[in-house]
Amino acid sequence: MTRFPSSVYDSRVRRAAELAKSAGLDALVITPGPDLRYLIGSRAQSFERLTALVIPADGSTASVVIPRLELAALRESAANELGLEIRDWVDGVSPHEMVAAMLPSPARTAVADAMPALHLIPLTETLGAAPVLATEVLRELRMTKDADEIAALRRAGAAIDRVHARMGEFLAAGRTEAEVAADIGRAIVDEGHTAAEFIIVGSGPHGADPHHEVSDRVVQAGDIVVVDIGGPVEPGYNSDSTRTYSIGEPSSEVAAKFAVLERAQQASVESVRPGVTAEAVDAAGRDVLIEEGLGEYFVHRTGHGIGLSVHEEPYIVAGNSMTLTEGMAFSIEPGIYFRGEWGARIEDIVVVTADGCESFNNRPHGLTVL
Amino acid sequence: MTRFPSSVYDSRVRRAAELAKSAGLDALVITPGPDLRYLIGSRAQSFERLTALVIPADGSTASVVIPRLELAALRESAANELGLEIRDWVDGVSPHEMVAAMLPSPARTAVADAMPALHLIPLTETLGAAPVLATEVLRELRMTKDADEIAALRRAGAAIDRVHARMGEFLAAGRTEAEVAADIGRAIVDEGHTAAEFIIVGSGPHGADPHHEVSDRVVQAGDIVVVDIGGPVEPGYNSDSTRTYSIGEPSSEVAAKFAVLERAQQASVESVRPGVTAEAVDAAGRDVLIEEGLGEYFVHRTGHGIGLSVHEEPYIVAGNSMTLTEGMAFSIEPGIYFRGEWGARIEDIVVVTADGCESFNNRPHGLTVL
Repeated sequence: MTRFPSSVYDSRVRRAAELAKSAGLDALVITPGPDLRYLIGSRAQSFERLTALVIPADGSTASVVIPRLELAALRESAANELGLEIRDWVDGVSPHEMVAAMLPSPARTAVADAMPALHLIPLTETLGAAPVLATEVLRELRMTKDADEIAALRRAGAAIDRVHARMGEFLAAGRTEAEVAADIGRAIVDEGHTAAEFIIVGSGPHGADPHHEVSDRVVQAGDIVVVDIGGPVEPGYNSDSTRTYSIGEPSSEVAAKFAVLERAQQASVESVRPGVTAEAVDAAGRDVLIEEGLGEYFVHRTGHGIGLSVHEEPYIVAGNSMTLTEGMAFSIEPGIYFRGEWGARIEDIVVVTADGCESFNNRPHGLTVL
Repeated sequence: MTRFPSSVYDSRVRRAAELAKSAGLDALVITPGPDLRYLIGSRAQSFERLTALVIPADGSTASVVIPRLELAALRESAANELGLEIRDWVDGVSPHEMVAAMLPSPARTAVADAMPALHLIPLTETLGAAPVLATEVLRELRMTKDADEIAALRRAGAAIDRVHARMGEFLAAGRTEAEVAADIGRAIVDEGHTAAEFIIVGSGPHGADPHHEVSDRVVQAGDIVVVDIGGPVEPGYNSDSTRTYSIGEPSSEVAAKFAVLERAQQASVESVRPGVTAEAVDAAGRDVLIEEGLGEYFVHRTGHGIGLSVHEEPYIVAGNSMTLTEGMAFSIEPGIYFRGEWGARIEDIVVVTADGCESFNNRPHGLTVL
């Protein structure tokens, strides 16, 4: 299954048009990327030649502007079943002028976050007015997951849990982080993902860098190792889960600090329910760390929304007063980082339910000794 | 080897500044993608948080604006050895304002093709003037490959030739295109690529669609099959080679038409030398097909430049009067497509030498019978 039934996309395109109208726009212009996949189920990836879904805010039929040579890429999408107008173009034609010709001049448009400068700059010139970002319009739609999207995220969570369950096969003293990561990458695909999107294996002092990926460092007996992994399952929804491992028994100091992190992560998870703000979820866990004198070692936000993008709204961060509502899905991933020594992080993806949240990741949260 | 020695990047950054100055710009603003890898050897991929190399046209020190959490990603690049100013930022700061503050206001800037709207729109607002594309400035640099880049492309070509040499292991009647492609994907990596960037297996009527990728169609005895594959080798340079296979002996009609295609491809290759235009190379092969009554079945351009991007300048296409010079590398890939029946394409990557060209792909060009 590379996409949902067409009725799902029909409703999404209609709502996007309504939201565009409410925002005072003439149209949305959506190039390949997660927004296009969200709206019509297309995995198109063209870059140099413009492919764009044009959704007029007045509710008239949406169009797809696409290079003739790439028409085949539309077949798997819902474009035909939705009755969209397909406007193919050949080399020598200006696709930016084709888009502009469908709209009033100057046109008030919003474009996908992912639209590259290669298209945005000529499109801005032909539209006669600078586009704004469609993020604001699409955020409302993409942020709240329906039952099918939640099912996909649940499958993604179970798949990455199966990879963590097998960590003893991959992670051991004497192997480099890169070797461990290569094995994890194969397991991510074997367990049902279409690709290994990201793999962090942060051993020993590397675990103290939240964005370390992998290196040729050899894992040592006694290391604490942060493993943060994920990827998409069809139709494109992502997993993202972190567990921290100990190569041999941890010291009592490490164990004690990790226990605080575990309490902090749990406190954030338990704070999630409709009506709570994103920043309150961040504070719930952060306060536990601060009370125990570890606040300064938690150097990043608590989490990010997830769906067709690994990082999307809502961001679980101080200063974000957005109220959480049922169907929002995001990570809860506090960490503690001791520069040059070690680090730890625990990450689950949760979805807001009617009276709390459901976690898609259900492996034990403790420091797993390998 | 994920990058070249720092001296290579030092010279590239200096020349980019000079070209920016000649173009009347104040600065280049380069986000992650092939341009950033070209200029400082960085494989950074950040999307939502701005990472940007700012190269002032006045020759003063270039800067890298980067989220503090992603500083580690710079370590493998040449940024530190080049003495670039590293300006890291944390959540809550506007990185677009950081970039604008380094430049005059309004600033005349050129941005990377790949810069997403997510950054280009706020950057345009803070710069006070709309950026132009850096394509024009960087084209001159990126289009002409130096000896190290040619060596990398040669290694990439040899690697994909080894995959084509093994095609009999993968491609057979009774297997789906998708099964064949999965095996080819593993072989692309096994033979030295860091990833399988694209895999086209167009069997029977699917071969008649130049941009068909793969499907669940089962390969049949008697099929003609187009296999167009490639990917990057370190430090990031791509292979791209097409061969056409016949599952069993081809009919005399197919063999005769394919022989014309082979002559056409050879005619284009033999036309390449410094001083010839891109469109003349396109015409050399196209004329052979036209003379034999097959011109209407060759529905795309002859080729595209290749390097850190799979598709880049120069484009080998009618209307491109650019003169070829030593060090330019591009594909020569004519094809013939008979809708609903079959198709064929032959593709080599060549580099312009002092008196002709060198082909990086050296497998037999004929219809290989499997």
